[in-house]
Amino acid sequence: MNEKMCITVMSGSVDRLMGMAMLVSGAVAMDMEVELFLQLWGAYVLKKDVMKKNMRFSEFPEKLEVVGKRLQELNLPMWYDMLKKAQETGLLKIYVCSTAASIWDVKKDDLEMVDEIIGAGEWILKSKEAAITMFI
Amino acid sequence: MNEKMCITVMSGSVDRLMGMAMLVSGAVAMDMEVELFLQLWGAYVLKKDVMKKNMRFSEFPEKLEVVGKRLQELNLPMWYDMLKKAQETGLLKIYVCSTAASIWDVKKDDLEMVDEIIGAGEWILKSKEAAITMFI
Amino acid sequence: MNEKMCITVMSGSVDRLMGMAMLVSGAVAMDMEVELFLQLWGAYVLKKDVMKKNMRFSEFPEKLEVVGKRLQELNLPMWYDMLKKAQETGLLKIYVCSTAASIWDVKKDDLEMVDEIIGAGEWILKSKEAAITMFI
Repeated sequence: MNEKMCITVMSGSVDRLMGMAMLVSGAVAMDMEVELFLQLWGAYVLKKDVMKKNMRFSEFPEKLEVVGKRLQELNLPMWYDMLKKAQETGLLKIYVCSTAASIWDVKKDDLEMVDEIIGAGEWILKSKEAAITMFI
Repeated sequence: MNEKMCITVMSGSVDRLMGMAMLVSGAVAMDMEVELFLQLWGAYVLKKDVMKKNMRFSEFPEKLEVVGKRLQELNLPMWYDMLKKAQETGLLKIYVCSTAASIWDVKKDDLEMVDEIIGAGEWILKSKEAAITMFI
Repeated sequence: MNEKMCITVMSGSVDRLMGMAMLVSGAVAMDMEVELFLQLWGAYVLKKDVMKKNMRFSEFPEKLEVVGKRLQELNLPMWYDMLKKAQETGLLKIYVCSTAASIWDVKKDDLEMVDEIIGAGEWILKSKEAAITMFI
């Protein structure tokens, strides 16, 4: 086996989340398992009152409007819609870092799409079995 | 084998691209194959009218001048010159994400140094054979 | 074996460094070896006159105060304290990129916690033996 992708998601920026979600969709389409571990900003943007309102870019913020317009013209789904679709296949699991959950003072049910809250040690054990690892 | 490095390049910031290009040069010097997959900003900064003009830093923008001066004093090549040299060895392949190409409405020939435009699924299949994977 | 995590640290932002340090602590707790390779900003923030003063966030800078307050309330150690503790186990090695050392015109002793200054080629040889690789 060893056909798993594990991504540590520190970022809460839409550009990086879009890139990550495309990799997740691609991996699931290729029948790979995917696991995400959401740290600080990744957990923040899964808050129910934040997820759809967040429109921050990590780079080139002056291009937000033109890129947003192109995404609409091309009818591209948002990053969270891509993750939801991937999750429906059963191949994607979304974990939130227990420290991030403490920082934002949230439980699993305060966040969208989260399967479980776990610690960094448990995440490392999952990641070392993966064929692809990344930090976004 | 399994001696390959696969880097997903979301960033278009010169600091991150310089760091990435040094890893690419180091890998090629060690006779490893390298494959890059350029997403949103990575594809943007390969546009022929953007590549050499782009001088954005992702962090500590107030240090752009002092770092730029040091790079000149040390006679360090720019990230694209490092990639071009690596590409001449035949060990580096540069792919652009098909979605990024659609967003910027570009074809292969509108971009510098690109070998091929491919989808995320194909990229995942390449990445899972790599010994080193990263997202920048 | 092959139970090693290798992280290339380009970033000097406290949010990303905190996330990285938690992964390092988790890995060391699971008895894995960890190696870090500090590039531009990662080397900069290890300068003795910078490390503890640096309070930069890479994203959501307007949340610096609220997150800082939560970190204090939760009694979370800073990233460099986590790394120091990991280093005491003997499982963590911290390398600085020789080019970054040249850019900042520093030697090993001008930096905190650094084991050795090495080149990118040597880093690649170390990384390709790792089970987990990342770029932050």
